[in-house]
Amino acid sequence: MSLVSRLESLGLVLPDPPTAVAAYVPALLSGPWCFTSGQLPLKDGTLMAVGRVGAEVDPDAAYAACRQCALNAVSVAAWASGGLERLLRVVKVVGFVQSDDNFHGQPQVVNGASDLLESLFESQGRHARSAVGINALPLNAAVEVEVIFEVAR
Amino acid sequence: MSLVSRLESLGLVLPDPPTAVAAYVPALLSGPWCFTSGQLPLKDGTLMAVGRVGAEVDPDAAYAACRQCALNAVSVAAWASGGLERLLRVVKVVGFVQSDDNFHGQPQVVNGASDLLESLFESQGRHARSAVGINALPLNAAVEVEVIFEVAR
Amino acid sequence: MSLVSRLESLGLVLPDPPTAVAAYVPALLSGPWCFTSGQLPLKDGTLMAVGRVGAEVDPDAAYAACRQCALNAVSVAAWASGGLERLLRVVKVVGFVQSDDNFHGQPQVVNGASDLLESLFESQGRHARSAVGINALPLNAAVEVEVIFEVAR
Repeated sequence: MSLVSRLESLGLVLPDPPTAVAAYVPALLSGPWCFTSGQLPLKDGTLMAVGRVGAEVDPDAAYAACRQCALNAVSVAAWASGGLERLLRVVKVVGFVQSDDNFHGQPQVVNGASDLLESLFESQGRHARSAVGINALPLNAAVEVEVIFEVAR
Repeated sequence: MSLVSRLESLGLVLPDPPTAVAAYVPALLSGPWCFTSGQLPLKDGTLMAVGRVGAEVDPDAAYAACRQCALNAVSVAAWASGGLERLLRVVKVVGFVQSDDNFHGQPQVVNGASDLLESLFESQGRHARSAVGINALPLNAAVEVEVIFEVAR
Repeated sequence: MSLVSRLESLGLVLPDPPTAVAAYVPALLSGPWCFTSGQLPLKDGTLMAVGRVGAEVDPDAAYAACRQCALNAVSVAAWASGGLERLLRVVKVVGFVQSDDNFHGQPQVVNGASDLLESLFESQGRHARSAVGINALPLNAAVEVEVIFEVAR
């Protein structure tokens, strides 16, 4: 099944890629890789989760927010790569979780991104990953996720 | 205009690359990329900004410090790559901002690095980027920036 | 001397690679690189150092924990690459140190990883590196380390 069909069958809609607003871009091709910028859990222009996980944000809401970050990463990577079907494989994910000092469940939160990518890319969706806590993220977002994809040339 | 001329016209002077003092090196070539180590805002041997942004350090000073980190990254990448003119393009920037728990303007701070790179590399200076807060950086530096460049072989 | 012999002469035993338990994998090959997931200081199934460095964990214990993270990274990279002898070179290390807000000795802590890699890979063990503090890591681990290796195809 194509990635486009799989998106549909999962009931997922790719968000529009954000327009670049600065010296950096949402995603960039270099060699056979597409590097995304750190993606916030923006959905229809609004952050899905604001605050620290383990305090104002519960882990389930943060999991859903990571899922949105990963969907945004797919969107910007497809935009930079010339279409969704050029994304061959997920290589690497880094998940930054804005965490209360005593919250240590970052892996379960970042699974939101990993599970989305595996459901979409199947066996080509498995990736290396780091998950860490962060004391303060941009816009007080609960999570931020960056992804490296392998891309067809 | 060459990179060397552009540096001059911008009134910028590349700092001397630091000597390696440990098992790690300031920058390393692998394939067509040059990976820099995390650069602190050292200028003439002194940190330009010490403390947490949003508390002891204001965002403008942190922006200037990020600019210096990026200049240091260009310097070590040129050193590792065999000269400034071998740096073809900026690929990826990660900006770590030592932040007060309630400071969420990391993107504006890391723009100091992004703007410097774009002014120097022009259209080849646009890059993917992540900007995150950090509770404690080496030497109490306000910011740390790492960069991946694409390099001529 | 081969890597296998060098391990022996250093009195090091590679841990068994962990089994993948999620949508992500311990390490992944892409092009000539092997990307490891963030490695915790697990030894025989137990974390070697738990808590914040500069508070509950002293820097020497954190140094030893980083050494273990690096050994775990070598193990998973060898597993993903088809054997230890396929690992040609260390490219990049990121060391995340769960730090008290007032601890700024992250470089000395992450030297535990860098020194292990240099003792094992010798001149091919020198790498680019970033070392940062983190307010909260998975499982309350004191350190987490990820590595990129260059691999024989």
